[in-house]
Amino acid sequence: MTSSIGFIGLGRMGLPMAQNLLDADFPLAVFNRTASRADTLRQNGARWANSPRELAAQSDIVISIIADDAALRAIALGEDGILAGLKPDGIHVDMSTVSPDVTKELAPLYHDRGAHFVASPVFGRPEAAAAAKLWICPAGAAAAIDRCRPAFEVMGQGVIVVGEEPHLANVLKLVGNFFVIAGIETLSEALTLAEKGGLQNETVLELIRALLPVPLFQGYGSRIAKQEFVPAGFALALGLKDVGLMQKLAKDVVAPLPLADLADNHLRAAFARGRGDLDWGALATVLREMAGLPSGAPE
Amino acid sequence: MTSSIGFIGLGRMGLPMAQNLLDADFPLAVFNRTASRADTLRQNGARWANSPRELAAQSDIVISIIADDAALRAIALGEDGILAGLKPDGIHVDMSTVSPDVTKELAPLYHDRGAHFVASPVFGRPEAAAAAKLWICPAGAAAAIDRCRPAFEVMGQGVIVVGEEPHLANVLKLVGNFFVIAGIETLSEALTLAEKGGLQNETVLELIRALLPVPLFQGYGSRIAKQEFVPAGFALALGLKDVGLMQKLAKDVVAPLPLADLADNHLRAAFARGRGDLDWGALATVLREMAGLPSGAPE
Amino acid sequence: MTSSIGFIGLGRMGLPMAQNLLDADFPLAVFNRTASRADTLRQNGARWANSPRELAAQSDIVISIIADDAALRAIALGEDGILAGLKPDGIHVDMSTVSPDVTKELAPLYHDRGAHFVASPVFGRPEAAAAAKLWICPAGAAAAIDRCRPAFEVMGQGVIVVGEEPHLANVLKLVGNFFVIAGIETLSEALTLAEKGGLQNETVLELIRALLPVPLFQGYGSRIAKQEFVPAGFALALGLKDVGLMQKLAKDVVAPLPLADLADNHLRAAFARGRGDLDWGALATVLREMAGLPSGAPE
Amino acid sequence: MTSSIGFIGLGRMGLPMAQNLLDADFPLAVFNRTASRADTLRQNGARWANSPRELAAQSDIVISIIADDAALRAIALGEDGILAGLKPDGIHVDMSTVSPDVTKELAPLYHDRGAHFVASPVFGRPEAAAAAKLWICPAGAAAAIDRCRPAFEVMGQGVIVVGEEPHLANVLKLVGNFFVIAGIETLSEALTLAEKGGLQNETVLELIRALLPVPLFQGYGSRIAKQEFVPAGFALALGLKDVGLMQKLAKDVVAPLPLADLADNHLRAAFARGRGDLDWGALATVLREMAGLPSGAPE
Repeated sequence: MTSSIGFIGLGRMGLPMAQNLLDADFPLAVFNRTASRADTLRQNGARWANSPRELAAQSDIVISIIADDAALRAIALGEDGILAGLKPDGIHVDMSTVSPDVTKELAPLYHDRGAHFVASPVFGRPEAAAAAKLWICPAGAAAAIDRCRPAFEVMGQGVIVVGEEPHLANVLKLVGNFFVIAGIETLSEALTLAEKGGLQNETVLELIRALLPVPLFQGYGSRIAKQEFVPAGFALALGLKDVGLMQKLAKDVVAPLPLADLADNHLRAAFARGRGDLDWGALATVLREMAGLPSGAPE
Repeated sequence: MTSSIGFIGLGRMGLPMAQNLLDADFPLAVFNRTASRADTLRQNGARWANSPRELAAQSDIVISIIADDAALRAIALGEDGILAGLKPDGIHVDMSTVSPDVTKELAPLYHDRGAHFVASPVFGRPEAAAAAKLWICPAGAAAAIDRCRPAFEVMGQGVIVVGEEPHLANVLKLVGNFFVIAGIETLSEALTLAEKGGLQNETVLELIRALLPVPLFQGYGSRIAKQEFVPAGFALALGLKDVGLMQKLAKDVVAPLPLADLADNHLRAAFARGRGDLDWGALATVLREMAGLPSGAPE
Repeated sequence: MTSSIGFIGLGRMGLPMAQNLLDADFPLAVFNRTASRADTLRQNGARWANSPRELAAQSDIVISIIADDAALRAIALGEDGILAGLKPDGIHVDMSTVSPDVTKELAPLYHDRGAHFVASPVFGRPEAAAAAKLWICPAGAAAAIDRCRPAFEVMGQGVIVVGEEPHLANVLKLVGNFFVIAGIETLSEALTLAEKGGLQNETVLELIRALLPVPLFQGYGSRIAKQEFVPAGFALALGLKDVGLMQKLAKDVVAPLPLADLADNHLRAAFARGRGDLDWGALATVLREMAGLPSGAPE
Repeated sequence: MTSSIGFIGLGRMGLPMAQNLLDADFPLAVFNRTASRADTLRQNGARWANSPRELAAQSDIVISIIADDAALRAIALGEDGILAGLKPDGIHVDMSTVSPDVTKELAPLYHDRGAHFVASPVFGRPEAAAAAKLWICPAGAAAAIDRCRPAFEVMGQGVIVVGEEPHLANVLKLVGNFFVIAGIETLSEALTLAEKGGLQNETVLELIRALLPVPLFQGYGSRIAKQEFVPAGFALALGLKDVGLMQKLAKDVVAPLPLADLADNHLRAAFARGRGDLDWGALATVLREMAGLPSGAPE
């Protein structure tokens, strides 16, 4: 039997994900802080709920994808929260990029009520969400994850099960984002060195196509080479916050992460110069200035 | 008409490259410091030359792939060197990883004699050389590069023409190697963080297969996760030298390259602890020790 | 007229500071979590209070020097806290190393009640506290600071007034501690380089006496050269926490602080290897290991 | 009996040093590339020599203080060099900042001829040279150093004997310069953080006077706080070269020196932006820009 799904968080990621569920005929209820974001989904058959609690009460599985730890606590806890409404054996799957800390704090509360918390962050930009090409990384009770699989399958291209402890999925998401910011730092340094060394950008992009033919390196390589930082696929100010989560994790588990520190200093310098709204590929503007080149940031 | 080729440097890369030329019916003469490395090629039809000069005198194109700047100077210059033997309009194609400096020094000497120097470093490990899957990156006079194309095509899977100034190819090679060492640093930090954070290595490798499905990340990811640093595909001590070339280039052209400095410190720490003969993926052993984990270096 | 003083926090710093006040005939009441720490002071004439509130009620000025933000909140707030007991126009002078954040949070609460909060961290180790050689750095209302001067003068060798906004004193303390950890990092790298370069430690110490004849460089220089990390004047685990406060400040005010990141990675590596109880000069053990030398940490 | 002295290199350091020798009645001959720099000394009684060789032939001790390795080789070697003219048992004392490498190369050549090479770099700026307040750090044969002591005593405030192997003095000089550049990096980060954190520069300078009352920290602290980078006491472009020597030493002896890498990146960024002629305290301009502050470099 198809599970009924409640969806919270109709942002740039959440909206296409919810639409994919609707297109696959999942019974869908939705809640969002800004109600108007739900208009199209409602026209297409989704029900509206007046609170996370009300949403949870009518759903087998509640999926959330929201901004940060505080937003997750706000929808999960309190009188109108998911936890207050969730059915026995109900599941809350959070797909946001949040800290392992908040998951460690929430998961036991669900368990105590006979419900389930599954942390299940995703990899992919909004275009990948629309194309159902996300990579989905759940951690939690195996049975709960299995019940979510049909929904995962209509939203993503693959599922990587991380383990039984929900917060491990948040750890994996931070490790994955570390690969992204490390790639941006690498490309920024490489393209700056290449330009000062006399190479044409196009030659370096050709090399990248040969050695690193993956979207991460080709996409950011092209953005940095062409200095296209608007519109922001992922805003530098948010990237700074994400790197902060990685650094906190590294401190907490006592592991070195000097490359994150390096990128953090460069992102911070870009932010200090008023570039927080640009794509986080604009880290490169700082390297360029350090090389005596024009920053490449839009005026 | 097929060009006759002289080949110098029958190491782990050069030997399979020369064999590919022979298999494609190029008239081939060879020279190598250690003559016995040429035995099989000679049995298969290659002629032996007694010096680089003698080799050059009987070849349209001389290809070299040797250890470092000093070795290149040694075969190119002097009474028995390539330059002394090369025909008018002859070409010396050096495919080694050497500094832009040595190319800047040599290229004009060839030009003055009416000959050509083409710097044409390659990307790929010995397996890629054997499979004719190298990426070949020549820079020099366009006409000279064109004359080399038939030979390039039997050794590689693609040619990236870098420009007219020969030393630019060496710059591109260093930029490419920077991507490799940056990838090793990234993987070393990521896998160490993941382990301390409670993840299984296999989960992170699954993530890498999803996000970065390219040999660089999968190969080094697997080597680092499994702590397989013997045999060395590329020895850490050589990697340290290569990073030194990148750092010198960055100083010379006045560009920042802090990620190379970071990797350099880690490679140096591994070298100081007697790990220079391991694969340069063993950079990870230092990160592991900094996290309080067993190094993973063989006893 | 001499102010009556309440003193909270009889640790390695607080105890000699309180004794100096007593010796100078200030009427003194004391409170400490572990009551026995107050025995000698009580024998010498100090009164005991049963809570911070009771202490505050009988004092013109309450001085505290405690472990961290949480401890400061615990003694200041709540039913038994200083704030609940402080007289109108009373002053709470906190001399601890805490974050600017907690001061920003507390100071207005005092102001609202017609009382004063002065943040006044100190520089100096326990020996300096005993010898009344501390440097005392108050920030807060000028009139309140003036009332504290007689007490400051019997505890320190000098007063640096930071400004009117209390949290600025905490900022200055973090800047000062940054000088200390930067000095430790510098000495650790310098002495390791010198040893590998063939110099005698004694020669480098002679150079330090010539160029940097100040306790910070001579004291830590000697400790690091002789590998004397026990007993800990300041424990490495605490140092790691302090560097975390600096890094947070740098993030909050959007300033680069890469040297703190560098030291943080080294302190963390020492901590990961079980050296958290050593003096924070033991940062050097990590540099030594990176150079292939014996760490110098006690077995 | 007073030794006769030959002096080569009448730059901003050498000229006052030679004058001090003359004032102390040492028989003095001089040589300098730009002869006019010797005018005053000649008027005061110094003899002129037409070449390093001629100078050496008439002196017991030849003292040199020149720009770099190449300049040292140029005056020491060749037909007109010191080595060609030096008497049996004669001494060449080089007081320049040069690499340990060049000393290792030269010292045996002197030894082979029955003469002595003493490396004896100095610490102190031109004002200290004029005031005979240098710190002088000789390494070489003990008997040779003893013969130089009377001359050292009229040029400096103290002598630190480094050892018997001459190049060790160059190592010590690089370690000493590392303390200087590390101090500049520390001050640059600290003052930038302090300004962004809301502190007055004067407060931080007061703190430095309390904690670090030594010329290095007070002098550079004041220069950086007031952004006085002209005239250059020591030019940033020369500082970049010096840091390069430290980094090379660290590589050669296989020791980590990440703080030098950090400073190198900042110096390089200042150089890339056209600030090579400013005092090397202008490293701070880069940190200021990274914090979003005006650079403070003169227009």
